[in-house]
Amino acid sequence: MASLQRSSGIVFLVGAGPGDPGLITRRGADLVTRAEVVIYDGLVAHQLVALAPAAAERIYAGKKHHTAGTPRSQAEINALLVERARAGKRVVRLKGGDPFVFGRGAEECAALAAAGIAFEIVPGVSAATAVCAYAGIPLTARSVASTVALATGHEAAGKPTEDVDWEALARAGTVLLFMACATIDECASKLIAAGRAADDPAAAIRWGTTAAQRTVTAPLCELASEAAARGLKPPVLIVVGPAVALRDQLSWHERRPLANVRVVLTRAADRGAAYAAAIADAGGEPDFCPVTRIAEPADSAPLEVAVDDLAAGRFAWLGLASANAVHAVVDALWKRGRDA
Amino acid sequence: MASLQRSSGIVFLVGAGPGDPGLITRRGADLVTRAEVVIYDGLVAHQLVALAPAAAERIYAGKKHHTAGTPRSQAEINALLVERARAGKRVVRLKGGDPFVFGRGAEECAALAAAGIAFEIVPGVSAATAVCAYAGIPLTARSVASTVALATGHEAAGKPTEDVDWEALARAGTVLLFMACATIDECASKLIAAGRAADDPAAAIRWGTTAAQRTVTAPLCELASEAAARGLKPPVLIVVGPAVALRDQLSWHERRPLANVRVVLTRAADRGAAYAAAIADAGGEPDFCPVTRIAEPADSAPLEVAVDDLAAGRFAWLGLASANAVHAVVDALWKRGRDA
Repeated sequence: MASLQRSSGIVFLVGAGPGDPGLITRRGADLVTRAEVVIYDGLVAHQLVALAPAAAERIYAGKKHHTAGTPRSQAEINALLVERARAGKRVVRLKGGDPFVFGRGAEECAALAAAGIAFEIVPGVSAATAVCAYAGIPLTARSVASTVALATGHEAAGKPTEDVDWEALARAGTVLLFMACATIDECASKLIAAGRAADDPAAAIRWGTTAAQRTVTAPLCELASEAAARGLKPPVLIVVGPAVALRDQLSWHERRPLANVRVVLTRAADRGAAYAAAIADAGGEPDFCPVTRIAEPADSAPLEVAVDDLAAGRFAWLGLASANAVHAVVDALWKRGRDA
Repeated sequence: MASLQRSSGIVFLVGAGPGDPGLITRRGADLVTRAEVVIYDGLVAHQLVALAPAAAERIYAGKKHHTAGTPRSQAEINALLVERARAGKRVVRLKGGDPFVFGRGAEECAALAAAGIAFEIVPGVSAATAVCAYAGIPLTARSVASTVALATGHEAAGKPTEDVDWEALARAGTVLLFMACATIDECASKLIAAGRAADDPAAAIRWGTTAAQRTVTAPLCELASEAAARGLKPPVLIVVGPAVALRDQLSWHERRPLANVRVVLTRAADRGAAYAAAIADAGGEPDFCPVTRIAEPADSAPLEVAVDDLAAGRFAWLGLASANAVHAVVDALWKRGRDA
């Protein structure tokens, strides 16, 4: 195996998926558990960052709400990736959704390639498909929508170099707009001006796939006012097209008993897997926040004395109050060459 | 926990991802390991079907290469899902890529909803993003491609009810065509007739993300002849746009030491995880085909006698040839109330 290990640094661009921490890929999760450095975006579920080894360096690269006050620029993030990899580290760059769908992953890869750093891309479940799926909206459906178009709402903000072809977008079966919360009104107006029906079914979905998911539906011409009336804030995905109407029939996530419920489990993650699976099955979002930590006693002398007495056969009865106590006593016995 | 268990059947529509078995989601893999029935498509990696419990019913629903000679119709698959769920089963419907992107998942959900069957959708990594990522082609890139359009090549075959708007497609930054291997020529001609540049960079990618991945690149007007000359056969994804040219700089998968290599591991999956991870890290596809099976002896009498002698202290030395032998002997001792 030694010959397969890399001696130099490497960067894995891992798609963390759309929000629900169960939607990261197996390969992506495995890479996080073996990372030496994790550089993660603001929309990445904290449960995924928590998969990293305790000793791993964790770097928040979110461009908003940065605790230090100054958001990191893309150039800073690129430099950080190159610097840590050059130091020989195994770096996981954890990005929301998929790195190559409006994720600026191409820019990060280009910086790595230019610096001669090895990199790997681990695609993620894109918000485009998953957020709609959790809202009961298929992107394609026979005789309803046979093409899909993706764009961002940023472009609607009257940039001098607008490069979105709204006429082309307006003619797609299903239209998806990322990062469009602040510009729903402009996006809808441009689509309608480009020929889209004003009463086409549309939806704005906030925090899709998570316990905080909220969906607002309205005809395209009323989506902006409806979203404003409901106080919708980013992150929001907009979807427009007749497939949105299938939601009445196909909605499933929001009907589950624990939908929109985050359940805090106070056990350690390795002891609560069955509970977490049952909660996820019922539509809830399990979240491990262990309130106790199992550790060695600060002073092991009393345990040592007791175990010596035990090994010498001086006890008739031994009561142990938990599975952890059993492990501790058996470990102490093993160290003395004894067994159960 | 009992109150969280479902008493009636349920169907999970799980996206298996684009081919690489590491790209299924954690939630999807977990559901397969707990399935009572798995109904899987032809493009699903056999390593994922193998995650199901030994006792689970496995049903192949591939529409082509059906071993029984007659492909299953979509109506038959829908009926099967409803029937097994009505029988109270926990059914996993394992579909290639994402169920809601050209996967006919909407039809299966509609059949389940109409029959009153509970269902859940577990989005998968779509071939759209992953196949391009493994070929080093970002779907979007600043100042190169700010919109993406998805369609199928089926539609190009001169169907009477053609519902793809080729003019709109031709105007997207990046164009993706699913299931277009047989119609590359028609698709390219329609895009060029609709205004796409004849020399726009294009790629046809077969078996993307797997050890069998092959990529053919050419200007759009030459893609069909180039693919034919190289003998490209389905499954193929077509991608057209300036982002294809970034592949020269961003290609990574095909440069890895074990790219396009499937490595058969003859150990059981639970004993070769570290090897599998090292192979995946080097770009290979690990595939477990255990050539031995660890089982109880058909006649346990000789072991019983030997263990009784052991427990009675009649041996000075005990040699065990493998970890499995240690487990077997310790188990036998435990059954007698003894320990190591």
